Amino acid sequence: MHWMSDQIVYQIFPDRFAIGGPHTSDSKLALPQYAHGQHRRWTDSPLGGQDFFGGDLQGIIDRLDYLAELGVTTLYLTPIFQAPSNHKYDTTDYLQVDAQFGDDQRLRTLIEALHGRGMRLIMDISINHVSDRHPWFVKARNGESPYRDWFTFKPDGRYLCWRDHGHMPELDLRRPDLQDRLFRQPDSIMQHYLAMGLDGWRLDVAADMGISVMEALREAISIRYADRILIGEVMAFVAGFVGDSRRYHGVMNYYFRDGALAWLNGRVSGLQLIEALRDASREGILSSWNMLSSHDTPRLANLLPQAWQRWLALVLQFTTPGVPVVYYGEEVGMQGGFDPDCRRPMLWDASDWSPETVGWYRTLIELRRTRRELREGCFIALSHVLNTETVAFIRHTDVPQEVSLVAVNPSDKPFKAVLLLPYPHLYHDLPLRDALGSHSHLKMGAGSVDVEVAPRSAAVWVPDDSRYRNYTFFKGA
Amino acid sequence: MHWMSDQIVYQIFPDRFAIGGPHTSDSKLALPQYAHGQHRRWTDSPLGGQDFFGGDLQGIIDRLDYLAELGVTTLYLTPIFQAPSNHKYDTTDYLQVDAQFGDDQRLRTLIEALHGRGMRLIMDISINHVSDRHPWFVKARNGESPYRDWFTFKPDGRYLCWRDHGHMPELDLRRPDLQDRLFRQPDSIMQHYLAMGLDGWRLDVAADMGISVMEALREAISIRYADRILIGEVMAFVAGFVGDSRRYHGVMNYYFRDGALAWLNGRVSGLQLIEALRDASREGILSSWNMLSSHDTPRLANLLPQAWQRWLALVLQFTTPGVPVVYYGEEVGMQGGFDPDCRRPMLWDASDWSPETVGWYRTLIELRRTRRELREGCFIALSHVLNTETVAFIRHTDVPQEVSLVAVNPSDKPFKAVLLLPYPHLYHDLPLRDALGSHSHLKMGAGSVDVEVAPRSAAVWVPDDSRYRNYTFFKGA
Repeated sequence: MHWMSDQIVYQIFPDRFAIGGPHTSDSKLALPQYAHGQHRRWTDSPLGGQDFFGGDLQGIIDRLDYLAELGVTTLYLTPIFQAPSNHKYDTTDYLQVDAQFGDDQRLRTLIEALHGRGMRLIMDISINHVSDRHPWFVKARNGESPYRDWFTFKPDGRYLCWRDHGHMPELDLRRPDLQDRLFRQPDSIMQHYLAMGLDGWRLDVAADMGISVMEALREAISIRYADRILIGEVMAFVAGFVGDSRRYHGVMNYYFRDGALAWLNGRVSGLQLIEALRDASREGILSSWNMLSSHDTPRLANLLPQAWQRWLALVLQFTTPGVPVVYYGEEVGMQGGFDPDCRRPMLWDASDWSPETVGWYRTLIELRRTRRELREGCFIALSHVLNTETVAFIRHTDVPQEVSLVAVNPSDKPFKAVLLLPYPHLYHDLPLRDALGSHSHLKMGAGSVDVEVAPRSAAVWVPDDSRYRNYTFFKGA
Repeated sequence: MHWMSDQIVYQIFPDRFAIGGPHTSDSKLALPQYAHGQHRRWTDSPLGGQDFFGGDLQGIIDRLDYLAELGVTTLYLTPIFQAPSNHKYDTTDYLQVDAQFGDDQRLRTLIEALHGRGMRLIMDISINHVSDRHPWFVKARNGESPYRDWFTFKPDGRYLCWRDHGHMPELDLRRPDLQDRLFRQPDSIMQHYLAMGLDGWRLDVAADMGISVMEALREAISIRYADRILIGEVMAFVAGFVGDSRRYHGVMNYYFRDGALAWLNGRVSGLQLIEALRDASREGILSSWNMLSSHDTPRLANLLPQAWQRWLALVLQFTTPGVPVVYYGEEVGMQGGFDPDCRRPMLWDASDWSPETVGWYRTLIELRRTRRELREGCFIALSHVLNTETVAFIRHTDVPQEVSLVAVNPSDKPFKAVLLLPYPHLYHDLPLRDALGSHSHLKMGAGSVDVEVAPRSAAVWVPDDSRYRNYTFFKGA
């Protein structure tokens, strides 16, 4: 099992998370690296790609207590390399930490501080394309070798660029010398940061990079850094991008996100969702990332207006196969529409928080911490045989008592059913308790169980043999 | 991949397709080989098994331009061996081309003419039974060896015969010496024609022949003629008759036909049909034949009275796994009820054709020619998770852009749904165009898509990144 499957990932957009001491907003934005940007107060609304709030690596370091106490174990940072924009996807130098965020030494300090707490760091890189201001592209336009061959110019002077955006020229990743520079050589860009202690990379627009580049990348990284992780951003079904040692260790599982949100908005049925979860679970996605929101989407509060919708979405995120990713601020119930509104600065005043939302995250992070089957277990679909909106499934490891029976009911009616459970270690008479605390105990039949799930509610039933003092159902392996 | 999967098969009933030059109907039927039959004019209706219209191999040769231009790549001829009837299933000599159709030399000319155009020829043989006038059976009745043992006589003088029809005595195909004569020896009947250049055989009543005879036949033919094909007529589900090198390369897939027609007549549900398609696709049927009509069934115009029914049937025939078989004349919209009415002579006057039907076949043959996934691709069922009459599925190869999303709506209401697509290479934001031209573009979500299919209509959405000038979603392998 990869270490990633046990993590709680927290995504940070560095300009918007926290300004490190001793700087204030004023003193930070007065620095020369902000000379050309639009300056914003922490409580202002974001405007686009060129407005700056002053967040940085030291701000993250300063808030590690907060993150550790929340239960976060892995940080995922959107790009931090030198780039003109606030999002830094338009890199001009992969080997420089942008001065707005800090420098190499500050990055080393962050990595050491995380590792000292048993936490991990994943960074974000777009090797599919660079900024048109990147020296490689400037030299390529001037006809310099080898850069001219790292891009694809057409006879009319145009060049391949991401989604036709001229400011993001695409690299020709099939070039061996470019692969050497980006990831194959020990002093390559990606290995440079791994040598520094980085725990892995999230690859932007991995579908654009293609299958053979993925295989070359995985081989190059895993030979020297077998314990590090590569996560591909694949905005489609996961097959082919995960599943064996030639592929990514995991993907950002947008398939989960699209399915879960469409189901909670009544746009797909319970049957569609349980089949989608089953299809995805077959591909080997325990190290993939289940997100509900990100810097590219509205926040959950804007996607799902009702509290019960958000709660059920979170229960799914924390109980289906894959690793939950919390976009910064979601854990306190922040609002935000489409980009750039979803990139508002983090709320640090607890009086602005939604206590209900904070409670949800605490409950679910603790549930996941204590139940190994939710982190590492197999998936058995149950509700595909019921014509119902409720989604029900089992997660289990190969240890008999490591099993959860999950049922999520988005309808306004109670869900009542006898479930036949094709899993052997839920024995006759075994009591089950709802680890989420809202539903009463169940008692197993011989491979079947009567369940009732309240309207717009969820249950995670787990074995409970505490009622016996001198007996246990589970005698060990 | 077997070459058969890429073919468009055209079935010809030779007495009814065309009279070869320089003969006219009168001059042809005046020949001695028609002395005992009933003579019919080309525009007359068929009467049964003993009326003759004069079609022949030269007629087919004369019409190869027509067939090639239509897009046909393989001809399948019902039997042409010496036999008293017009259908020639009551063979009296497997080694003689019936004089009504031509001779060995004319058959060689047809094969050479086809091969010269890159086309193929499949012939039809019934080795399960022969005519009771076949010399083998006449000798068997007289007690001659080895013929007596090639049939099964009962103490009362009766004998096993196909479906109790005394004029079709069944051969005991388990006899090794009979297998030698029929297919195992280099000079056997079936190998004789393969040596002549025949591309394969369609085995009549293959289910009657049984499993062990199939295995012996496949082994004998494939050892010497590895590139030729054996297609079994199996009027049942396909499992066991296809799928590995001991079985037929393909079957006539009546399971497809029964399901599709029953669905379009409202007799089975969309769920039943998609599951039937999925069940069949699991068996490995890319070289099997999907027919909608044949010389043994009414024509499509008589099976499905509404134009929209026929169009949807054809879309399914050309998009589900397997090879479409066009019964002669269907491409111009010929009418015809049960045998013998379905065996009317081919209409050669274009003023008798249905222009709409001609257009359908041109569209679908071109679609299949240009989309490799429809010829060779895997099948992913989509609509089994929807409680709907619409059938929807994906076909795809292992090349990312080779993918089609097919949706066929037989109801009188629009079909609207969010489809979750368990296939990785339909990326977020990718535009899809309807290759059938009747539906508007779609735009992919992250593994999901909103579709709307008009009432009684079909769409075949394929990737379309033509809207980008300097970008492609598909970067290659």
